[in-house]
Amino acid sequence: MPRRTKKPTGKLRIIPLGGLGEIGKNMTVVEYENDSIIIDCGLGFPDDEMPGIDLVIPDMTYLEATREKIRGVLLTHGHEDHIGAVPYLLRTLNLPIYGTPLTLGIIRNKLQEHSLPWKADLRTVNAGDRVQLGCLEAEFIHVNHSIADACALAIRTPLGTLVHTGDFKLDTTPIDGEMMDIVRLGELGREGVLLLMCESTNAERQGHTPSEKKVGASLEYIFTTHAKKRIIIATFSSNVHRVQQIIDTSARHKRKVAITGRSMINIVSAAIELGYMKVPQGVLIDINDIKRYKPGEVTLVTTGSQGEPMSALYRMAYGDHSQVSLDANDLVVLSASAIPGNEKLVGRIINELSRMNVEVVHDAVVEVHVSGHACQEELKLMQALTRPTYFMPVHGEMRHLCANRELARYMGMDDKHIFLSEIGKVLEIDANGARWSGTVPSGKILVDGYGVGDVGNIVLRDRRHLAQDGLIVVVATVDMDEHQIISGPDIVSRGFVYVREAEELMDRVRQIANEALADALDDWDNIDRMMMKKRVKDDLTRFLYAKTKRKPMVLPVIMTV
Amino acid sequence: MPRRTKKPTGKLRIIPLGGLGEIGKNMTVVEYENDSIIIDCGLGFPDDEMPGIDLVIPDMTYLEATREKIRGVLLTHGHEDHIGAVPYLLRTLNLPIYGTPLTLGIIRNKLQEHSLPWKADLRTVNAGDRVQLGCLEAEFIHVNHSIADACALAIRTPLGTLVHTGDFKLDTTPIDGEMMDIVRLGELGREGVLLLMCESTNAERQGHTPSEKKVGASLEYIFTTHAKKRIIIATFSSNVHRVQQIIDTSARHKRKVAITGRSMINIVSAAIELGYMKVPQGVLIDINDIKRYKPGEVTLVTTGSQGEPMSALYRMAYGDHSQVSLDANDLVVLSASAIPGNEKLVGRIINELSRMNVEVVHDAVVEVHVSGHACQEELKLMQALTRPTYFMPVHGEMRHLCANRELARYMGMDDKHIFLSEIGKVLEIDANGARWSGTVPSGKILVDGYGVGDVGNIVLRDRRHLAQDGLIVVVATVDMDEHQIISGPDIVSRGFVYVREAEELMDRVRQIANEALADALDDWDNIDRMMMKKRVKDDLTRFLYAKTKRKPMVLPVIMTV
Repeated sequence: MPRRTKKPTGKLRIIPLGGLGEIGKNMTVVEYENDSIIIDCGLGFPDDEMPGIDLVIPDMTYLEATREKIRGVLLTHGHEDHIGAVPYLLRTLNLPIYGTPLTLGIIRNKLQEHSLPWKADLRTVNAGDRVQLGCLEAEFIHVNHSIADACALAIRTPLGTLVHTGDFKLDTTPIDGEMMDIVRLGELGREGVLLLMCESTNAERQGHTPSEKKVGASLEYIFTTHAKKRIIIATFSSNVHRVQQIIDTSARHKRKVAITGRSMINIVSAAIELGYMKVPQGVLIDINDIKRYKPGEVTLVTTGSQGEPMSALYRMAYGDHSQVSLDANDLVVLSASAIPGNEKLVGRIINELSRMNVEVVHDAVVEVHVSGHACQEELKLMQALTRPTYFMPVHGEMRHLCANRELARYMGMDDKHIFLSEIGKVLEIDANGARWSGTVPSGKILVDGYGVGDVGNIVLRDRRHLAQDGLIVVVATVDMDEHQIISGPDIVSRGFVYVREAEELMDRVRQIANEALADALDDWDNIDRMMMKKRVKDDLTRFLYAKTKRKPMVLPVIMTV
Repeated sequence: MPRRTKKPTGKLRIIPLGGLGEIGKNMTVVEYENDSIIIDCGLGFPDDEMPGIDLVIPDMTYLEATREKIRGVLLTHGHEDHIGAVPYLLRTLNLPIYGTPLTLGIIRNKLQEHSLPWKADLRTVNAGDRVQLGCLEAEFIHVNHSIADACALAIRTPLGTLVHTGDFKLDTTPIDGEMMDIVRLGELGREGVLLLMCESTNAERQGHTPSEKKVGASLEYIFTTHAKKRIIIATFSSNVHRVQQIIDTSARHKRKVAITGRSMINIVSAAIELGYMKVPQGVLIDINDIKRYKPGEVTLVTTGSQGEPMSALYRMAYGDHSQVSLDANDLVVLSASAIPGNEKLVGRIINELSRMNVEVVHDAVVEVHVSGHACQEELKLMQALTRPTYFMPVHGEMRHLCANRELARYMGMDDKHIFLSEIGKVLEIDANGARWSGTVPSGKILVDGYGVGDVGNIVLRDRRHLAQDGLIVVVATVDMDEHQIISGPDIVSRGFVYVREAEELMDRVRQIANEALADALDDWDNIDRMMMKKRVKDDLTRFLYAKTKRKPMVLPVIMTV
C-alpha cells in the first residue's frame, strides 16, 4: 500500500450485529464511506426462554438499509455460528460470499435445503489471498481452530489495518501440519494495526489450550487398553482433524471405520473430496457391514456428542438405531464437551448407555477433547503480535468480553483505547481517533419452522405462560338483545389439571364463569364484550390462584347471535 | 446384641422409593417382617420436561399400604433432597421423625409453612445414639458433609447389620473439628456388615474430595488481595461451615458481616441458636447498616449461588435489591458450583455483574468451593472399612450407580453380591442369601402450587406441546336441527404467531375451519360432534404444518343451541 502523505478524511465504522454479549450469531459490519463488508454471518441457538424456536439469526435491517454499499461477505470458517445465517441473508441480498474451500463446501451443502431466488455467488479464497472490496482490502490469514481451513482477517482501510481474529487457537502441533500464521500477524503488527477485534470465548481460562494432538494420544491409549471392544466415538462432525485422528488410530490398530449420522456422513465425504481428510485404502466400510467384524475390529464415528435427540448416538443409546445395537462389548467415547445448556441431554445419554452396561469415556475422565478457542496466554500473544492501537473484544457473553478486556489492561493498554461494545453499537474511527457514534437496529430474529421473525416477545411470553400452568378456555354464546346466555359456558382446559380427577374444581370454574357472565349481562348498559371477557378472566384467575396457587391462561370466547 | 444360635427365619426387604436412577428425592424402606423404617424423605427438582412443576416427591403408595408397621423415619441430614418431602409424608402418616438437632431445626422451620392435621413428632438424636424401632435398631454415625450434623446409619436387623452412608465425605480437617467416625464404621465392619448402601454422587471422580478447609485458604487469599473492595459471597444457606469460615475470615480482616436472603437468614439464626455457628461479638451487622462502612470493611453473605431468580444475589445483579447496589468497588464470590441444569442461570448472573464492572470469582478460577460428596478413594475406604457381604449403590443417576459398582468390582466383590437397584425394586435377604423379589409402586409425584399429584403425564405433554407452538382455538355455535352454523367460527390464537402481522394466515384458518364444519354438517347423518371436531382439527393441523412447519395445538369448541 502506498504511504499516504495526507490524512484521509473519511470515517471508518465498526458495527457488530451479533456475537457480542451472546454466544453465536457472529456478524460484524466494517464500513468506510461508500464501501462496506460483512464479516461472518452466523446463527445462534435458542435458550430456554424461547420455547419452540429453532434458530436465532441477527437482525439484518441495517444491511438492507445499506445494501448498495455492501461489497461482500467474508467468512472466517465453516461453523454454524459463523455461517449459519448465510441462507437467510441471501434470501434478500445477493452478495458475493468469500471463504476457503471447506467453508464454501459446507455452505453449498446448506444451500441445497433452501430455495433461493438466485444462484449464490460463492468465491473461493485460500489463506494468504487478498480480496479488494471497494476501498477495503481483505487478507485471509491461516489460524488453528476445531475445524479445518479457518482464517483470521486483516482488513486494510484508508485509515489503517483492522485485524479480526475469527475463532482461533495456537496449535504448534496441528493435525494438518500448519501452525497459525503468527509470522504474518506479527508483520501486520509491525506495519501498524489500528484495531484488533479478538475472540473472547476462553478469555476466563488461564494458560494455553492443549493441542489437538493431545486427543490423538488419548485415543491411542484408549484403543490400546480396549483392544477387544468395539469403539464408538461421538464428536462434532465439522471437526475434520478429530475424525482424521480417529481414522488414523483405527488404521494403526487394524480396525475398520464406519460413519453414521447424516451430518457426519456429509462432512466426511466433503472433506475427503476436497482433500482435507486422507483415508488409507480399505479402512472405511459401510455401516451395514459392521456385523461381519469382531468388536475389536471396528470403530464407529457418530454424531450426537451433545446428546441431540434423534442423533445417531441418541438412537443407539435408546436401542433405536437400525444398524447398531450396543452392549457390554462396546465402549463409547464422547470426544466433545457439553455446550452450556446441553449438560442434561448428554447426561441422559450416559445414563442410558450405563444401563446397557456400555462403558463410557468422557472428557472428565480422559482428555478426549480439547477446545478450539484460545486461552489467556494465546489471547495475550495475539495482542502482543498485532500491537493494536484500539482493542475490541468480540465473540462472547459479557463475562468473556470483560475477561478479554482485563487481558488488554494487563498488557498495558489504556482503558480509553479499549472498546467494550455490544450489538448495534457503532464505533467510529477517523484521523482524530475512535469514539462511540450511536446505534443501528440490531437484535434477535427468531426462526420457527418456515417462519422468520413472525414469533416475537408476545408470542414467546404466551408460550412460556402456557407451559407454566396451561390454559382454560371459557366459551359462551349470548343473545345481545335479550341479555341472555343461550349456550354454555363450556369449559375446556389443557395443561392445567387432569380434568377427570378434578371434576369438582371444573364444576366450580363453570359456575364462576356463569356468574361472571350473568352479572355482566345484567350490567349490560355499562359494559361491552371486552369488559365481559375481562370480568370472566379476572374472576377465574383470582379463584384459581386462591384454590391451586397456579395461574393458567384464561381465554374467554364470547359468541353472539 | 446376643449371638443367635438359630438362624432367623424372617425376610429382610430393602425397597428404595427414590434417589436411584435420579438425583434427589432420596428415600429407602427397610423392613423385617412386621417392622419397617424409612431412611430419608427427600424431594427432587423438576427437569425441563416438567414445565410449571415446583417440586417432585416420591410416590408414597407403598408407605400408606404398609402404614401399620412403619416405626419411624430416620433422617441422615438436613438437605432438601433428604428431608424435603417430610411435610408431604406427614400429611397422611403421623410418624415419629428422628434426626440430629440441626436437621430437626430445619424441619421445624419448614413445617411452619405447612398446616398439618397434627403436631409433628420430632425426636432428637445425636451421632452415637441408638434407637430401637420394633425389631430394628438404628445407630447414628457421624460423617462429614456440606451441612453440619450429618450421619450415616447402621441398622441392626435379626439377619445382620445394614449400613446406609447417607451423603458423606471424609474430611480430615473439618471446620467443626470432628472427622467422620471411621473407627465406628470399621468396628461395624469387623462385627460383620450384611449390606452396604453407599452414596454414588461423585463415584465418577478420581481421588479425594478436598477438605472444607481448602475453601478457607482460598477465602484468606481473596480477602488479602481485595482489601479495599466490598466482598459479597454467595453460597448454599445450609452450608453452615462455609458461612462460619466466611465470618471467621471477615473477623480476622476486621470486616463486619451482613446476611441477606431469606433462607440464609433463617438457617444462620437457627445455626447460631443451636450452637452450630459461633460468631465473634460485634461482627454481624444489619444489612441496613452497611452504608456506614467503607467497602473494605464489609462482607455480605447471600443466597443465590445457583442464579435462582428473585434470590438476593439475583436482585443485586439486576439492580433490584433494596439495600445493596453493586459497582466496581465490589467483588462477588460464587462459593458454590452450578448444579447441573443451573449453568445458564449462573452464567446470566455473572454476565450481569460483569456489565456493572463487578469483579467475579467462581470455582473455575479459584477453589472457592469443594464438594460435599465422597470421591473414589473415599468410596473405596467406605467399602474397605465396612467389608459388606452385599453392596447396593444408592443416590445417583444410572451413570453414578454404575461407577460405584465398578469400584466394588475393583475392591474384589463378586458381581453376584452387587445389587444395582432402581426405585420400587425389592431386594430380599434371608438366611439363604439375597435376591430380587418383585416390585412395589414407585415413581414421581409432581407438586404444582397447592396440587400434589394432580399434574401427570397428559397435563405435562399438553404443556410441552403448548410451549412448542402455542394453540389455536376454533369456536362455533351450530344449530343441530337445521344443520347450520349460527355463529362463528371464531379463531383465537396464543403463542402461535403474532396475529396482527398474520391476518392473511388467520383468514385462511377461519375459512378452512368453516369449510370443515360445513362439510361435517352436510354429512350429519354419518357424523357426531366428536367427528366434527376431529375434522376441524385434522384439516387445520395439516394446513398449518404445510404452511408454517409448526404444529400448534388445535382446540375446536362446538356449541349447540
